[in-house]
Parts: sequence; structure tokens; C-alpha cells
Amino acid sequence: MKIIIDVMSGDNAPEEIIKGVFLAHSEYPDVELTMTGNRYIIEDYCREQDLDIDDPMITIEHCESVITMEDQALSVVREKADSSMGKALKMLASGEGDAMVSAGNTGALHAGSTLVVRRIKGYARSAIATILPLEKPLLLIDAGANTEVTKEQLEQFAIMGSTYMNKLFGIESPRVGLANNGTESTKGTKLLQETYAHLSQCDRINFVGNIEGKQIPFAECDVLVCDGFTGNMILKLTEGLAKFFMGKVKQVFMSTPATKAAGVVMKPHIKTFKKEFDASEYGGAPLLGISKPVIKAHGSSDAIAIKNAIRQSIDFVDTGIIKELARQVQKKEESPNA
Amino acid sequence: MKIIIDVMSGDNAPEEIIKGVFLAHSEYPDVELTMTGNRYIIEDYCREQDLDIDDPMITIEHCESVITMEDQALSVVREKADSSMGKALKMLASGEGDAMVSAGNTGALHAGSTLVVRRIKGYARSAIATILPLEKPLLLIDAGANTEVTKEQLEQFAIMGSTYMNKLFGIESPRVGLANNGTESTKGTKLLQETYAHLSQCDRINFVGNIEGKQIPFAECDVLVCDGFTGNMILKLTEGLAKFFMGKVKQVFMSTPATKAAGVVMKPHIKTFKKEFDASEYGGAPLLGISKPVIKAHGSSDAIAIKNAIRQSIDFVDTGIIKELARQVQKKEESPNA
Repeated sequence: MKIIIDVMSGDNAPEEIIKGVFLAHSEYPDVELTMTGNRYIIEDYCREQDLDIDDPMITIEHCESVITMEDQALSVVREKADSSMGKALKMLASGEGDAMVSAGNTGALHAGSTLVVRRIKGYARSAIATILPLEKPLLLIDAGANTEVTKEQLEQFAIMGSTYMNKLFGIESPRVGLANNGTESTKGTKLLQETYAHLSQCDRINFVGNIEGKQIPFAECDVLVCDGFTGNMILKLTEGLAKFFMGKVKQVFMSTPATKAAGVVMKPHIKTFKKEFDASEYGGAPLLGISKPVIKAHGSSDAIAIKNAIRQSIDFVDTGIIKELARQVQKKEESPNA
Repeated sequence: MKIIIDVMSGDNAPEEIIKGVFLAHSEYPDVELTMTGNRYIIEDYCREQDLDIDDPMITIEHCESVITMEDQALSVVREKADSSMGKALKMLASGEGDAMVSAGNTGALHAGSTLVVRRIKGYARSAIATILPLEKPLLLIDAGANTEVTKEQLEQFAIMGSTYMNKLFGIESPRVGLANNGTESTKGTKLLQETYAHLSQCDRINFVGNIEGKQIPFAECDVLVCDGFTGNMILKLTEGLAKFFMGKVKQVFMSTPATKAAGVVMKPHIKTFKKEFDASEYGGAPLLGISKPVIKAHGSSDAIAIKNAIRQSIDFVDTGIIKELARQVQKKEESPNA
């Protein structure tokens, strides 16, 4: 198996991404790892950090440019087709690797995956699927790729999310919820009311109805389906509030000598707790619906998060999710009323 | 001044609502308080709790029925026009009170306010404005009344929210943000892109641009404008996550004897912290754009939350927000290009 890693993209690129590649190598010595990026920068950094760049399982594909956060999504297939992300996409498409990981510009990765690697036949859109580490891991789909969607697309997101949670988390019949502003079937926009009826009739998923914002943390479903605008809001607000509350708890501990002493006792427990709610423990967010595994690592990924995203891409290949997704859509075409 | 309180609606009605009325009475002895609801139930409860129902500043308007959470919004003007909520709305409309408070069905309160009390001339929609108690109090508008909106309506929400934060929180020039999935002006749906341009040109507000989910907790604006679907998601998810994190912190404290001891030290501090983030400290959520003050108290309000909502309705009357809102829209009509 060969995983391609775009080491030039992300807030902490290339240092943390390169370190993550070497961490993954020590955990999965049998997996080939190819880094796309500037050879000179990568080699310099490896020498400096005493990382064995001559290891035969680790290779470099040289490229000059990098997609930045400011670049337009389509630049990855136009003026920056030779960037570290563009190169990784092309290698994946042509079979020079089994999966790819990038911590770069989400819009570019989504556009590039769709145009270069292409979607699984039968899927109208690909979607970003992110694990929210709440009471139980909750798969949020779409977490930001498609701002506007149809009910048929939301149904496909539900099928993709269910398949993912089944294959990667071993959940027998994942409970699918629809993010809405109330639990009744008549709630939400016209699109959401129609989607509710549509999902209720889909025999391919275990639809448990609408999920309100206040229910999201409490494990009332395994897959939460929504458009990418709502998904982005849920994901980012959850991140922001987690950061906010942790900061507040820290402030409370720092307020008096007695609370500082209590803080010393609590520190290891708080650390465990923080780790439990660290999304990067689960790796990155796959772009489901693409014909090969593309994993979006969080922009702020450190070496461990990258290592986890590589682990996840290996699992993704191993579990054959894409074959199963193709089978699901074929089944649908054969029995369109199902 | 006379405040009308629907004492039959809400999760803890009528007990906590009635208690809240008496709490408000002891704090504001000069304000007349009228409770709409079943006279026999109210009198029985007051006798049982030794509350002086013969106080001349506290009166009862008898009505038989109650709007439940399951009732259709329009029932408040149709088959249940004589309910505690319907009666309160009619009294407010006819001038038998200066403001009203209800912890009942939001949809019914919104519909009833619009149809019975009516909007301020010039406002296309009324909106629910809720304080999120984060790094600083943040006014979320619309928090759930209008699922689908136009850019002109979002502009009016911005004006209403700014006026409210100016008058009630004394903020000179409240910073207005637009809830979106990225900070750039090109982010979001077509509606949000157009709204961004529209708000940028509005000289009546201090528009600071798009606000992403992860920025929401960190006081980057004073007024956060969005459609009611997004607002409901932000509000409810914030509530849900606050509950979730507090529960987790409690679990951590309960994990070992040492952390339990630390918990004893921390308890009063955690309590202060919880109070700081208790939305009900700020009272309820006004329905801005209605021609008289209507305050929606949280469904789960206890007596103190109701007392705070009554205090807020008194402030609402005192500060003359509605006159200012009418003036704002008049100004707009006089100079339509401003």
C-alpha cells in the first residue's frame, strides 16, 4: 500500500507534516509513504531533525508551488496544478498511490478531488465527513463542501455516512439524524421537510428523525446529515466553544491559591479529558463520494494528527469503503423506488 | 407601568412563573403585574405558598385554555384565542398593559405578536433576539422566528439588534457580524454574499464582516445576524454543548478521591462560572420589530428567570427602544439610499 502526503499544506507545514510522516512510518513500516513538496526544503528539514530520508519506504515527489488558504479552489487544476496538492491528486488519480492526505485549503482539495480523482459513478456530490468527538463519535456529513444541496444529495450523504460508520467504527446499523430546528417532521425549511419524508422512505439507512442543536452532543445519532453551510457552523462552533470552555475552566483554576492547588490535582485528568475530545485523535475528514480515498487533515494538524490521518487513510483502503459505496449506488439504480 | 405575564405557559408553569411574578413584585413594588391564566389554579397555588394574592399591584385575568408546545402557531389567534397567551397578547394590543412576558410556544408567540399586537410600521418581519452569555454578551438575531429571509430583512435585523444593544447594554456603536462559513466576502450562499455587500453599504450599523462558528464565543461582535434556522442551530448547540461540557467537568471531579476533594474547593467557583454563562440572567428574548414589548422567556425558566424577564420588560419600556426602532425605519424611508 502507498499513501501520498501533501507535506507543504497546512498551518504547521512542512515541519509537523514531515514529522507526522516519519511517525506513521515507525508505526506502519510496511506502508510506502510519498511526500509531495519541495525536495530541498524537505531534505534540509530531515537532515536538521535527523530523520532518515534515505529510507526506501519514504520517497519525495518534487514540486515547486503550494496552494495557500487564499488561493481560489480551482487554482489546483489550473495555474497551480503542479503544487504539492495538485501533484498528490494527479498521482492518486493515475494509480501511483492508494490514498492521499492533505491539511491544505478545503475548497481546493474538494474541487481537485472532484475534477482530478473524480467521483464514484452515481454520486452527484462528494461531501466532507468529520468526526465530532462528543458523548460518542458523531459523523457530521457534509461538514463544509456543499453550501447548497438537494434532498437526493442529502440522501446520498446519509448513505455514505452510514457506510463509513459501519465499516470504520463497526456500528451495525448506524442511526442517521437530520440536523434541524426542531424534532417534528414539519420543522425547518421546505427542503428539510421534503428531506425528512425522503429519508423516512429510504430502506438503505436507519433514519431516526430530526436532531436539534441541543441534542447534538448527546449521542442521539451516529451520522448527522446536513448541508455544508450548516455542517460548517456546527463543526466550527463546536471547536470554538470547546476552546472557550477549556479556557474558562483554566481561568477558574487560576483564580485563588486554593483553586491553583486543586488545579494541580486535576491537571492529568483534564488532560485525559482534553484528549478524549480532540478530533484529531480520529484522524482527518474523508471526502466521501470520491473514487479514491482523500483525507482532509485539520489545517492546524500537528505531527500526531497527521500520523492519525495516515492511519485513517490506511484503514480506509483496508476496509473497502469505496467498493461498498459503489455497490450501494448501483443497488439504488437497480431498484429506484427502494 | 403594567406588565402582563402569561403564567400558564412553559415547562415549569404555573408554579415557577407565579413565584417569579411575586419575586418581581418585591423588587419592583411600583410596577403593576397582571397574570393571565386559570384563576382557580393560581389562587390555590398562592394560598398553598402563602403568596399574597390580594396585593393590589398583582391581578389575575382569568382564562381557561393554554397553548401547548404541540399546538399550531396560529391556534393562538383561532381556537385558543382565549388562552393565557392569547389573552395576554390581546391585552397588550388594546393598551391594558405596557409589555408582556411568556415562556410558551415560540411559534405561537411570534405569530400572535405579529397578528394581534402587530409589527412596527416599516418592518417586514419581527425577529427573536437572544443574548448568548459568552466572552461578552452577544445578541443573536434572528434566534428562530424566520427560517427563510431576504437580505433586506437581515439588514433590518441588524438595525434592530444594534438599537437593542445600544439602548439596553449601553454599547455606543455595536459591532454587527454576519454568521457565515468563512470570513471572506465571497463566502456562504448567494444570499449571504449579497447580504455582505448590502450590510457593508448600510450607514446605520457598524458592520464588521462575516463571523465564523469558531469566532462566535470570542466577542468579535456585539450583534450576530443570521436567518432563524442558523440562529436556532447556534443557540441550541451552544446550550447543548454548555450542558455537555459541564457534565463532563463534573464527571472528571467525581473520578477519584483526590479529584473529589479538589471538587469541594472548586464548587463555589464553578457555581459563579455557571451563573456567568446562564442566559436566563439576562432575562428572556425580545421579539424585536413588534410594536409593543413582547419578551419570550426560555421554556425551562424558573422563578428567577421569570423575574429577570420581567425586569427586562420594564427596562425595555423605560428605554424607549420601540420609538427608536420606528425612527430608524422612518429615517431609512426618507433616505432610501442611505
